[in-house]
Amino acid sequence: MSQQSRKFSGLWKIVAWDEADFQGQRQEFASECYDIASCGFNNVGSARVESGTWVGFEHPGFQGQQFVLESGSYPSWEAWSGNNAYHVQRMTSFRPISCANHRESKMTIFEQENFLGSKGELSEDCPSLKALGWKSNEVGSLRVHSGAWVCSQFPGYRGFQYVVESDHHGGEYKHFRELGSHAQTFQVQSVRRIHH
Amino acid sequence: MSQQSRKFSGLWKIVAWDEADFQGQRQEFASECYDIASCGFNNVGSARVESGTWVGFEHPGFQGQQFVLESGSYPSWEAWSGNNAYHVQRMTSFRPISCANHRESKMTIFEQENFLGSKGELSEDCPSLKALGWKSNEVGSLRVHSGAWVCSQFPGYRGFQYVVESDHHGGEYKHFRELGSHAQTFQVQSVRRIHH
Repeated sequence: MSQQSRKFSGLWKIVAWDEADFQGQRQEFASECYDIASCGFNNVGSARVESGTWVGFEHPGFQGQQFVLESGSYPSWEAWSGNNAYHVQRMTSFRPISCANHRESKMTIFEQENFLGSKGELSEDCPSLKALGWKSNEVGSLRVHSGAWVCSQFPGYRGFQYVVESDHHGGEYKHFRELGSHAQTFQVQSVRRIHH
Repeated sequence: MSQQSRKFSGLWKIVAWDEADFQGQRQEFASECYDIASCGFNNVGSARVESGTWVGFEHPGFQGQQFVLESGSYPSWEAWSGNNAYHVQRMTSFRPISCANHRESKMTIFEQENFLGSKGELSEDCPSLKALGWKSNEVGSLRVHSGAWVCSQFPGYRGFQYVVESDHHGGEYKHFRELGSHAQTFQVQSVRRIHH
């Protein structure tokens, strides 16, 4: 099945509530939501992913802080945010991650921006880039050859999350600003594949 | 090399500071620390893991909330805590995870306590137990056959962390209370192996 057909095949389902603990107004989605306000919600207070893997965003239009949402129950903002330091508790848009491809995920990370400096090839989950021999706490740029990945600010998949995909930007992220509007540095200490 | 000899072979190193951002009093450790107060620290404010994988604890004597610490830099409490809801920002004891064994990690999870009900065999990282077909948001009991694992409250390795090891409790955790004094439920939605 091609990525495109999978994207619209009904394999995606997320349920959102406007209050925590699955309370209040409820809405099901089988495809992307550009702005939760269009459903009369002020914010997503809790969510349950029934199928597929999604990415949620702080701001409408897929902007701001990012949250990977795999199958499961998220009773509150604390459940999807990996970041403790930044407490704007909002998730107002989300979309499926259509190119998640666990079996064949491949990515190259570079020490410097524009794909320069020493590099590392990744095809497995890595809770600590340092343990793998990566010298820095940062990644300067990266190229996603296949699949989708989540880069995390701290070891063990904690802190800010940056979703990078082979079918966005042609898989090329040549500067940390291309990771998303919330990226202030390219501090990345752990990286893992995103499953279907 | 046996686990015991590895435990004391100098392959473990963590550096702790009593303030955030690697400031203030500094102390290196090559083995467990029962109570950071014995070094004149009030609390660990930041840490850097140079080698091995460690587990930190909220309270002295390896009690309270648990934090897996893989190689890398942790500039503040936010970097090691996966939990946003519970803001007692303390880490006062820590020890190496001596049985981390990535290649051969195996664990069985059970629906009910005392190893009863339907079960699942795990030998790979799993960011969503639901995606694997696990029906519940909870795990009733579990048996670690080899290696060490971290169970997380929410999908994607977020929320409270519970370290379970083949060389603790004989690898048997028959009730959530055996996971640690901070466990109020056995809510576990993701599970991953701990690397050396």
